[in-house]
Amino acid sequence: MAITLGPHQYGKAENRIVRIVRDTARHEITDVNVSTCLRGGFDDAHLTGDQATVLPTDTQKQTAYAYAKTVGLNPIEDYALALARHFVDDVEPVTGARIEIEEFAWERVIVDGTSHDHTWARTGREVRTAAVTVDGAGEDRIEHVIQGLKDLTLLKSTGSEFHGFLQDEYTVLAPTDDRIMATSLVASWRLAPGTGEDWNALYASVAGILAAVFATHHSLALQQTLFEMGRAVLEAHESVVEIRLSAPNKHHFDYDLGRFGIENRGEVFHADDRPYGLIQASVVRDEFPPAPLAWEKYSGLV
Amino acid sequence: MAITLGPHQYGKAENRIVRIVRDTARHEITDVNVSTCLRGGFDDAHLTGDQATVLPTDTQKQTAYAYAKTVGLNPIEDYALALARHFVDDVEPVTGARIEIEEFAWERVIVDGTSHDHTWARTGREVRTAAVTVDGAGEDRIEHVIQGLKDLTLLKSTGSEFHGFLQDEYTVLAPTDDRIMATSLVASWRLAPGTGEDWNALYASVAGILAAVFATHHSLALQQTLFEMGRAVLEAHESVVEIRLSAPNKHHFDYDLGRFGIENRGEVFHADDRPYGLIQASVVRDEFPPAPLAWEKYSGLV
Amino acid sequence: MAITLGPHQYGKAENRIVRIVRDTARHEITDVNVSTCLRGGFDDAHLTGDQATVLPTDTQKQTAYAYAKTVGLNPIEDYALALARHFVDDVEPVTGARIEIEEFAWERVIVDGTSHDHTWARTGREVRTAAVTVDGAGEDRIEHVIQGLKDLTLLKSTGSEFHGFLQDEYTVLAPTDDRIMATSLVASWRLAPGTGEDWNALYASVAGILAAVFATHHSLALQQTLFEMGRAVLEAHESVVEIRLSAPNKHHFDYDLGRFGIENRGEVFHADDRPYGLIQASVVRDEFPPAPLAWEKYSGLV
Amino acid sequence: MAITLGPHQYGKAENRIVRIVRDTARHEITDVNVSTCLRGGFDDAHLTGDQATVLPTDTQKQTAYAYAKTVGLNPIEDYALALARHFVDDVEPVTGARIEIEEFAWERVIVDGTSHDHTWARTGREVRTAAVTVDGAGEDRIEHVIQGLKDLTLLKSTGSEFHGFLQDEYTVLAPTDDRIMATSLVASWRLAPGTGEDWNALYASVAGILAAVFATHHSLALQQTLFEMGRAVLEAHESVVEIRLSAPNKHHFDYDLGRFGIENRGEVFHADDRPYGLIQASVVRDEFPPAPLAWEKYSGLV
Repeated sequence: MAITLGPHQYGKAENRIVRIVRDTARHEITDVNVSTCLRGGFDDAHLTGDQATVLPTDTQKQTAYAYAKTVGLNPIEDYALALARHFVDDVEPVTGARIEIEEFAWERVIVDGTSHDHTWARTGREVRTAAVTVDGAGEDRIEHVIQGLKDLTLLKSTGSEFHGFLQDEYTVLAPTDDRIMATSLVASWRLAPGTGEDWNALYASVAGILAAVFATHHSLALQQTLFEMGRAVLEAHESVVEIRLSAPNKHHFDYDLGRFGIENRGEVFHADDRPYGLIQASVVRDEFPPAPLAWEKYSGLV
Repeated sequence: MAITLGPHQYGKAENRIVRIVRDTARHEITDVNVSTCLRGGFDDAHLTGDQATVLPTDTQKQTAYAYAKTVGLNPIEDYALALARHFVDDVEPVTGARIEIEEFAWERVIVDGTSHDHTWARTGREVRTAAVTVDGAGEDRIEHVIQGLKDLTLLKSTGSEFHGFLQDEYTVLAPTDDRIMATSLVASWRLAPGTGEDWNALYASVAGILAAVFATHHSLALQQTLFEMGRAVLEAHESVVEIRLSAPNKHHFDYDLGRFGIENRGEVFHADDRPYGLIQASVVRDEFPPAPLAWEKYSGLV
Repeated sequence: MAITLGPHQYGKAENRIVRIVRDTARHEITDVNVSTCLRGGFDDAHLTGDQATVLPTDTQKQTAYAYAKTVGLNPIEDYALALARHFVDDVEPVTGARIEIEEFAWERVIVDGTSHDHTWARTGREVRTAAVTVDGAGEDRIEHVIQGLKDLTLLKSTGSEFHGFLQDEYTVLAPTDDRIMATSLVASWRLAPGTGEDWNALYASVAGILAAVFATHHSLALQQTLFEMGRAVLEAHESVVEIRLSAPNKHHFDYDLGRFGIENRGEVFHADDRPYGLIQASVVRDEFPPAPLAWEKYSGLV
Repeated sequence: MAITLGPHQYGKAENRIVRIVRDTARHEITDVNVSTCLRGGFDDAHLTGDQATVLPTDTQKQTAYAYAKTVGLNPIEDYALALARHFVDDVEPVTGARIEIEEFAWERVIVDGTSHDHTWARTGREVRTAAVTVDGAGEDRIEHVIQGLKDLTLLKSTGSEFHGFLQDEYTVLAPTDDRIMATSLVASWRLAPGTGEDWNALYASVAGILAAVFATHHSLALQQTLFEMGRAVLEAHESVVEIRLSAPNKHHFDYDLGRFGIENRGEVFHADDRPYGLIQASVVRDEFPPAPLAWEKYSGLV
């Protein structure tokens, strides 16, 4: 009955890199949070403390900053691919690498109606994400790119119903045919392997589709809305083979003002914090096989 | 040597109210976090537990939600004034009220190039704030309005220097004539009493001036930039008698890539979290007396 | 080339339930954050908006609070099992349930040397966690219990080395034979199916072992320490078949005081925030098959 | 109508310093977050950008780390006093300094029943604070020390009432003679000038009194409890001339299980996040004059 080492991985999390391109007077900015994760033959480090096969997390950090210059950060998907390939190809014990990136958006400050050359305000509207996995060598080489977003907070003040649900002895919820629907969306979409993409254009398109379908789809449930959002993305982009969506149902409760003789026709709401419904769904092209490796997050092991 | 009750106040913090105006198909949204704070003759509640003069915090909450309908939330300054006056005028033991509000901005979702009637995305760019104090009755009545913002994250990639500073035995900082300057601005500006203002227009103007001066002012220090930002606001708006600015110096350190034979001419930076410089300054019209009561925050007692 | 619904699940996240047992003058408290997640035949809700098979998340909330009384919250593992079995057994469309719990620890306040009957202070030392999965019916029924902890912040001021690591062109880290090692540990251990456990005793034992091995093991790397921590748990508890550990390397950098003529022999450190090394490892009994379903977190889909 | 510079200050916020004393095999740890704030003649920096009187925030950081070795961090009040006096006495343009410190508590890990020599777990129970102000020179020299704590989360499951309160047209709250009372306490107590104190002993005593009175005082309102807590501290410690308390009323609402035929006699509660009552009070010795300068927080200007 042996006790042995199981799955393991390690890396440098949350390298906060800012890259300025200043070749002309009109600068460009890319602002990211990069985590690098290596997989491979690191058993001795765990079993005996021998670090001979361990590339220090400090080295991974140095590499991440160096590549921000030599490769550049824009688009983040190409940067992540370059970094992952480097670790797998150039560092002998490494058999797989996972690069996860958050990108924070900035918009140029407006001065007298004109966008400024070298000053920005952080928009805070949503965070763009990328997760790249490179695994194996030669014919067994696998590369996955997942593009995504998080913290996209959407709200519609009508066009949302919820009724006809299953009832049991603990069901007291009243059905409704008009409610606020709000969420803070997380979405991740996986690209077909080997697709050549204009990553920035793809991102802008998908993010736009998600918001537009949320707005225009008359919803019978958040579940339905999520599926329609995902389907619209896959219909618009053949290269996207799968999309996953996680949507907290940020409850906005009608506030009872009738007690005070005040009518409230869906006008005043309490935005509650917790608990919240949490709906998760995926939409897939059924001719493509699942790719579990693509979804193995750095934070996912424990 | 008597031990007695000193200053005290109480209220309901962080009422998360969302108001939808749905009189036409094109809805409007206002999303706020409201805290109410009452001051007055509540000694018995502390000294003997007698609550006869204490309006429950639950009642303050109900009132805040009711006024969101009857008065409306837009602009937040008028809502805060109405709420504060109500507490002071209509609740006998209350001699002063402080209302603090955070307002979260939303922008309409774009569908096929058109902004949607009832769907929004939260912008996250900055949070608008208001702090209203109403104190006393009759001739002694004082009303203060402070408008403000927080979490306005600004960055300029050039046009900022720092040198010629005082040196002592612990000074190792190298002077620089070109650096990134970034901050997450907090600003509050106090209005002259009795000013009739278009609050939303004033807010938009001041927020724009702050960002524009940050962009265009060639900076010898964050201190200088803050003063110029404040001065520009007071020059543009006669009704603003005072502005206070708090600016963390969000350090972006040049990353040393020379060790790897890679030139880094102000292109790759590490965005550090802590510690950070923190600069605070105010700009005032010297003919106006200070108004310490206006700045007594709900959170400021302890 | 069909676009179809892929994996999906839903539930109520973060029910903040506090249970007081007050049968005698000496009360007991259990304070938890419960998330319920259902899996099963909810396709119509996504595809057509028909909610006939959807038990509302509000109902899941009511059930979670009701079971806090009828079943009780202590220990959280039994509560989670009861709740999960209810959803799978009593709600027809539900084929699987996942219950995730955080438990916040309280200790009795000391008054004149005696612990108080009905007053506690929250300890904040670590958060205990449980994740229970119940899936299928009859002979195919599977039940998994994972016990764990998070936010256990440990630091040792000596007894930790790091050297002999792999070097490449980006490696500038200096080897060390004496450093601070600190982490904020996340650990999860899976129980053999069908084990009858004294859950509270098991938790106390495992948490104690993890901290003790961290303390006493002379470390050549955080990787090695993690393996030894996990091995000690499996050696002490036959019912534990697997443990997973995630450990940020919370860097404490020696501060360079030599510039000021001050000697610093491992006495003054800067505790840095980001980036940080992140080491993850698992220790397993090799005669037990992996149980991927046990590790499918509610938050893990996207 | 001149526009001029008003109050201003600057410094280095959140220096995260860890000090290990390792003179014997039994090490000691002090873990702090230090902010330094300088006041004085820095007008030129704001008005013209001339930094000749500005000691860089980087220098303040270096000094804070150096003093952690030369003066030591334990107790934090003596460290803060030394640092503040240095800035005021040794840096010419500085007329006043404010040092604010958070101290994070660690407890030794237990191994085989014995506390370990060089390994600790962070307790997380509460954060100890200190705020020291040094202002002026010679006969005008003023020194203030405020000791405090925050994040002390206390809960009592009985012994708390709330009734007999003021009612108006928005009052719907039901009175109660038995409820949960819970808070996350912030407390700050000011020492008489020139008191020689055993700071660590004083802290332990005051923190113990606050918790014990919360436990044993039968409460008619959180207001009353706060006053009694403060009074007990002043009665026990003559050197404490003033204490300020801020207490969110962390609402625990009885959960309505009657709908399901389940009796809930104060056993199952929903711990709500927002809104929350927020009660603030101070208890003072009336023969001592107020000391507003002592309470001017670094974060308090804006």
